[in-house]
Amino acid sequence: AQSSVTVFGVLDADISHYSQGGVSKTIESTSGNGPSSLGFRGTEDLGGGLSANFWMEAALLNDTGAFAGSALFGRRSTISIAGNFGEVRLGRDAPPSWWNNVVFDAFGGAGPGSATNITKGGGSNGFNGTNPLAFTRVNNAIQYIWGVAPNGQTAFGNGIYGNLMYVFPENVSGTAAIGQYTGARLGYTNGPMNAAVSYAQSKGAPLPGAAGLSTTFKDFNLGGSYVVGVAKLTAHVGVNNSDVTRTKYTHWGVGASIFAGAGSIPVSYNSTKQNNAAGDGADQFAIGYVYNLSKRTVLYTAISHIRNKNNGTYTFLGGNGGGNPGLQTAFGGGRSFGSGTGTDFGIRTTF
Amino acid sequence: AQSSVTVFGVLDADISHYSQGGVSKTIESTSGNGPSSLGFRGTEDLGGGLSANFWMEAALLNDTGAFAGSALFGRRSTISIAGNFGEVRLGRDAPPSWWNNVVFDAFGGAGPGSATNITKGGGSNGFNGTNPLAFTRVNNAIQYIWGVAPNGQTAFGNGIYGNLMYVFPENVSGTAAIGQYTGARLGYTNGPMNAAVSYAQSKGAPLPGAAGLSTTFKDFNLGGSYVVGVAKLTAHVGVNNSDVTRTKYTHWGVGASIFAGAGSIPVSYNSTKQNNAAGDGADQFAIGYVYNLSKRTVLYTAISHIRNKNNGTYTFLGGNGGGNPGLQTAFGGGRSFGSGTGTDFGIRTTF
Amino acid sequence: AQSSVTVFGVLDADISHYSQGGVSKTIESTSGNGPSSLGFRGTEDLGGGLSANFWMEAALLNDTGAFAGSALFGRRSTISIAGNFGEVRLGRDAPPSWWNNVVFDAFGGAGPGSATNITKGGGSNGFNGTNPLAFTRVNNAIQYIWGVAPNGQTAFGNGIYGNLMYVFPENVSGTAAIGQYTGARLGYTNGPMNAAVSYAQSKGAPLPGAAGLSTTFKDFNLGGSYVVGVAKLTAHVGVNNSDVTRTKYTHWGVGASIFAGAGSIPVSYNSTKQNNAAGDGADQFAIGYVYNLSKRTVLYTAISHIRNKNNGTYTFLGGNGGGNPGLQTAFGGGRSFGSGTGTDFGIRTTF
Repeated sequence: AQSSVTVFGVLDADISHYSQGGVSKTIESTSGNGPSSLGFRGTEDLGGGLSANFWMEAALLNDTGAFAGSALFGRRSTISIAGNFGEVRLGRDAPPSWWNNVVFDAFGGAGPGSATNITKGGGSNGFNGTNPLAFTRVNNAIQYIWGVAPNGQTAFGNGIYGNLMYVFPENVSGTAAIGQYTGARLGYTNGPMNAAVSYAQSKGAPLPGAAGLSTTFKDFNLGGSYVVGVAKLTAHVGVNNSDVTRTKYTHWGVGASIFAGAGSIPVSYNSTKQNNAAGDGADQFAIGYVYNLSKRTVLYTAISHIRNKNNGTYTFLGGNGGGNPGLQTAFGGGRSFGSGTGTDFGIRTTF
Repeated sequence: AQSSVTVFGVLDADISHYSQGGVSKTIESTSGNGPSSLGFRGTEDLGGGLSANFWMEAALLNDTGAFAGSALFGRRSTISIAGNFGEVRLGRDAPPSWWNNVVFDAFGGAGPGSATNITKGGGSNGFNGTNPLAFTRVNNAIQYIWGVAPNGQTAFGNGIYGNLMYVFPENVSGTAAIGQYTGARLGYTNGPMNAAVSYAQSKGAPLPGAAGLSTTFKDFNLGGSYVVGVAKLTAHVGVNNSDVTRTKYTHWGVGASIFAGAGSIPVSYNSTKQNNAAGDGADQFAIGYVYNLSKRTVLYTAISHIRNKNNGTYTFLGGNGGGNPGLQTAFGGGRSFGSGTGTDFGIRTTF
Repeated sequence: AQSSVTVFGVLDADISHYSQGGVSKTIESTSGNGPSSLGFRGTEDLGGGLSANFWMEAALLNDTGAFAGSALFGRRSTISIAGNFGEVRLGRDAPPSWWNNVVFDAFGGAGPGSATNITKGGGSNGFNGTNPLAFTRVNNAIQYIWGVAPNGQTAFGNGIYGNLMYVFPENVSGTAAIGQYTGARLGYTNGPMNAAVSYAQSKGAPLPGAAGLSTTFKDFNLGGSYVVGVAKLTAHVGVNNSDVTRTKYTHWGVGASIFAGAGSIPVSYNSTKQNNAAGDGADQFAIGYVYNLSKRTVLYTAISHIRNKNNGTYTFLGGNGGGNPGLQTAFGGGRSFGSGTGTDFGIRTTF
């Protein structure tokens, strides 16, 4: 029945300009402040503190009208049962190892200032396409969640929260468990402070010349935020390892969201470094302004600068996971990445 | 306007384990008890007993967030006009020859115990991909429906019900009418009893070496159910023919849904046999348990065993039409199918 | 929250018969009277006359359940801010040069009688696939809109209305701006009369042998309608140019929607002509009947005749943009297009 379904979402569009490696691009993009999405969710009270919950949410590329990625409800697709024991959730969702990279980023993982440009994802940080740790969402997951509102993503209130996730690799017996993921996140929030730590490992495809031997990837990260008088301060640090190639990527970032009248000023500095001979890496500095037209709607702008070090190949991911603007293709085609600058101006509304 | 649209659906996820032919697979799957789906429907009262109705329903693979099949609203996509004369419905829908295989199956065509594993569909029962009789849904259909609630699928109440369907092949004049389907279903329900018979024929692609000569497929089936004190008993039987290859598949099944406190115990035995020299075929026995958390939400489990006879190649279809878990591929790759066992444990909620 | 989202749409299905060039086809089609669609939209009042608006609308091929085109919300996908200054809208939408071809067509651009069969679109009027002017919708647009209801498509009331649109080509610096579009539409409505003029130009792909030189296309059109006692009269005229090939297409049409009791009789005559040596072109005459079952639901029928002149290759586009019934393929495969006739009978409901 209709009464049990809530239609919800975010629409966010901006005009962006990016330049890097001697070329530039002006585009209409999405999700510069929040992730464009459309979803359907509901909760049924089963009595005795129990509830059944579902959440189907599409990521949208609203500049073209397409949904992002290959699956319609690519942002989340879950059914769960929750009670005093916590919540058991089945389906596609964000893995525990992903949250700290976004929650403790002053830009919330959105727009040209997103820390994830250089700290995670997009194939540019040592995780390839067959490694679940490279993904911001995983399929076939089962989670146990504690201290979080049923069907939700944020802590009940003060106290401990966390989740454990296992991703079924769905391999046939006798073959490599490619896609298997095991991860956990443990956090604590109390008044102005919030902090969480996460560890995960996953199995990727065998390397060339190592048939049958799947690679094990490991991801450790932690982050925190603290609200002082005029700002919410954020910091995060993380390290990604691959056991076969023995590659290691470390990244860290600090930031703040400074309260400014009817809006706020996000500012952040992020850095990443690889353990290869050249010591490839990148730094990113970003600052923006978000003006609240209402509780649900904002105008925003940001400017971000990436400085690649040595042979670093970091660039801007763009809206909704990087699939949209094709910036990587534009900037990466056989030319030095060098330094790059991105800026945007847009509007975001939540419904 | 919003008031005229109902958002509805089902979410169902389970953890399943399948073994067959010497290999096994553990997966997160969908639709083990009911078909995961999301839909939009509405009815407008036109006065004088007339109504205009629409129904758009997607089949979901909620373990990945994708919609099943190639069309978004693949479960149903119809507009209709209904009145005292019955209902005329246009668009994609389940064909009349499909219903008895599911309505009179104790497992309702869902999960490892589904009768359809061996009685219909999936390419393993002699119907190939170009034959509409192999499909659980057909495009470009026009139906006349009698005795069924407008826009619905179940009988008004006691009495006769039925539908006639024609599928436009949409071929250019002078070419074979591949995809044409003509079918009917006639049923009668009265208090504890329900029974229906169906006949359909369709045209598939020409066979190799028989250009211009499209194959005619025929499907006859009937089924019934009867509620006695402690259970709902079900039975069905059917036969599929192909006129060119003269192949014939017969199948039958009996089952029961035994009422057990706040839940029920579905149990079924199904059998199928081909008319080829080897007499290929299969038997399936399945038993489960469904526990009602509420009217809308259940926990469920089932175990099912398929025993292939002679060179039978039957296996489990998996959630939402078999496209999801890739069991056929896992179990069928050049190895004997042998016997197989499937089991699942999951949750289903309806909204 | 749910209260801020409206689910809306149109479902329209018909049975159509088309014949042309010696072959014929009977199909179940969509959108013979109105565009089958499903959408989600909302408006937030920001105070001071300001509002934030979004509109996500899919085009549906409800005979198969698919969404039309390559993007889910292919009919419209926009976010906007509106106020006393007008409206600024970002995202995918209909371009200004498209409206007059449909608003001032007695058949509203739908069904076999649609003026657009010969006046615009579909690859048959000199605009190829890389030219935004060939599209009924464009991606990556920014618009300024005046005199139109916020988030809407129709004028506030009596007075001037219009919009300016720019489409970002999103090309990398130093490459051709393929896909760039700049267009405007200016109209005036007052009581029974409505008229509008539009001009647009766009850049298509370079022609063979002219690398680096993108083609500039130009489109000029105007139209009007006037309600007299028994009918709404419509007329439109337009011309499309290509600067490199120096091709020019001119088209015009007149029509009326005659009020007839509980329904109306649309009738139209359209003509198009190319400036090539042979003087290719076509005429189309169409008449129909629309019977209102209610304010939201109609039954309809229409018959339309296209007469190709010289080597004209015009044919029927079919439902929802021509992608559905494959008529072009059926009728155009190496045979003379000749004259063609199309007819349909269907039902359309709006919700």
